[in-house]
Amino acid sequence: MKENRYDDQTFFDKYSQMARSQKGLAGAGEWPELEKLLPDFSGKRVLDLGCGYGWHCRYALDHGAAYVLGTDLSQRMLEQARARHGGPGIEYRQAAMEDLQFPEGSFDAVISSLAFHYVRDFRPLAERIGRWLVPGGSFVFSVEHPVFTACGSQDWYYDENGNILHFPVDNYYLEGRRDAVFLGERVVKYHRTLTSYLDTLLQSGFTLRRLVEPKPPEELMDLPGMRDELRRPMMLLIAAEKRQPQGGYGYFRALQRYRTDASEQQCTKHAENPSCFQLNCTRKRSKILLYFII
Amino acid sequence: MKENRYDDQTFFDKYSQMARSQKGLAGAGEWPELEKLLPDFSGKRVLDLGCGYGWHCRYALDHGAAYVLGTDLSQRMLEQARARHGGPGIEYRQAAMEDLQFPEGSFDAVISSLAFHYVRDFRPLAERIGRWLVPGGSFVFSVEHPVFTACGSQDWYYDENGNILHFPVDNYYLEGRRDAVFLGERVVKYHRTLTSYLDTLLQSGFTLRRLVEPKPPEELMDLPGMRDELRRPMMLLIAAEKRQPQGGYGYFRALQRYRTDASEQQCTKHAENPSCFQLNCTRKRSKILLYFII
Repeated sequence: MKENRYDDQTFFDKYSQMARSQKGLAGAGEWPELEKLLPDFSGKRVLDLGCGYGWHCRYALDHGAAYVLGTDLSQRMLEQARARHGGPGIEYRQAAMEDLQFPEGSFDAVISSLAFHYVRDFRPLAERIGRWLVPGGSFVFSVEHPVFTACGSQDWYYDENGNILHFPVDNYYLEGRRDAVFLGERVVKYHRTLTSYLDTLLQSGFTLRRLVEPKPPEELMDLPGMRDELRRPMMLLIAAEKRQPQGGYGYFRALQRYRTDASEQQCTKHAENPSCFQLNCTRKRSKILLYFII
Repeated sequence: MKENRYDDQTFFDKYSQMARSQKGLAGAGEWPELEKLLPDFSGKRVLDLGCGYGWHCRYALDHGAAYVLGTDLSQRMLEQARARHGGPGIEYRQAAMEDLQFPEGSFDAVISSLAFHYVRDFRPLAERIGRWLVPGGSFVFSVEHPVFTACGSQDWYYDENGNILHFPVDNYYLEGRRDAVFLGERVVKYHRTLTSYLDTLLQSGFTLRRLVEPKPPEELMDLPGMRDELRRPMMLLIAAEKRQPQGGYGYFRALQRYRTDASEQQCTKHAENPSCFQLNCTRKRSKILLYFII
């Protein structure tokens, strides 16, 4: 069951009061770090999974994206997105991200902000995102940190006087549903380990480019409770890239260029070194044997 | 100051009673997972940082390594290593790993088991390991998990009856010295965040291959306390690979092979596409322009 808490009026009203809803990217503490991980959007086809108010969609378009598709389960979110960040080049679609379907290589970049911890199974989603991306395509996302989601309550552990003692971790390896409290309301989230996020990516055809656990920004350190955020990690930002097919893609681009000059060519893997390709060409009556090691 | 607790008689005696000292790899709960991350050692020059009793050195040699160097700060450890796992092809050297120096490309694989949390600065060490490795070389290590090292005490949080409540996390972003208790003795360890391990590697010329937080093995689940190890992550296993120099190494290997046939060549970066190299050759009086896209 995909829970749609954001279409609950009370929950949505509270969400709409948050700094990140009212001020957008500037109101999100992790944004300065997330922005650094984003790819160059120029001319790119971008998918934003769990787009919410559409702040990141707008950012991608403002930075040159050719086309942006934002998807969200919540109709209320998408109403806000269309009203605030609609227009040519941006499309919004109501759907659970687990149900989306696109042809292979439909996007040059996939982004997602704080949405994957609402998704029960990460591996099939990661594999599908891998197929939607072109080789070399970017996958950048933020999620709640496994340390933050493990216990379930997502709250500090206090002494009898209400002072914070520490942040509790429990049931770390028991992945799955957690009944968390967010904005004073019960919300179902899914805990998974760091291994499940990272090793799944590494084994699903992605290369990891960056991993950042964002600290609260220095300039916000005087806000109430902010200094305590140095005591626990709350978010995880990950930038990955869809790997080129093994030993192939770079070669085929090279071959494509070369073909314009060569009158004949034949490409085979090198018998002794599987990462090496042999290219046999006849060009102006010269037989040429080339090696590409990729 | 590099602390050398393992040359303290009391501490060493306790360490020598541990299952991993007495039974070796079979006595280390994380070994089945670590073994899967290790590279093919055939014909490789291997460096083991913090080699202890030399179990991993012996494993590398038994699996075809051409040469293995184990280093450790502790003389007592190395005495054990030489006695148990000495012989042709294995060398042991007493040194703090921060002080080691090797020429560039001296090793094909660097391994380290549960030693880096004794090292204060990871970044300079990672950078130096990157230089010691050949391009494509393997770097596989285990460390105590940042969740495990953050608080410092490395102990559960208990209720008044001595029952485990949860595992405490605190001061996560405050990296540095922790006075931990290990085997009932005070030991200085260094906490750092996951970001500091992984993002440092990614930004120091490594590609991440695998990341695993090993669970206690099923068959040990009936041992006292073992089931509680599902409640917190204690270790982090990382397999990385030294990246090929940007856009270069694959090209230069290709060039080297081609050079044997070509009478003249000149290599330049493509003006418009910096990931593309142009190779101008004269071969049997034909002018050839090739592109390598790496």
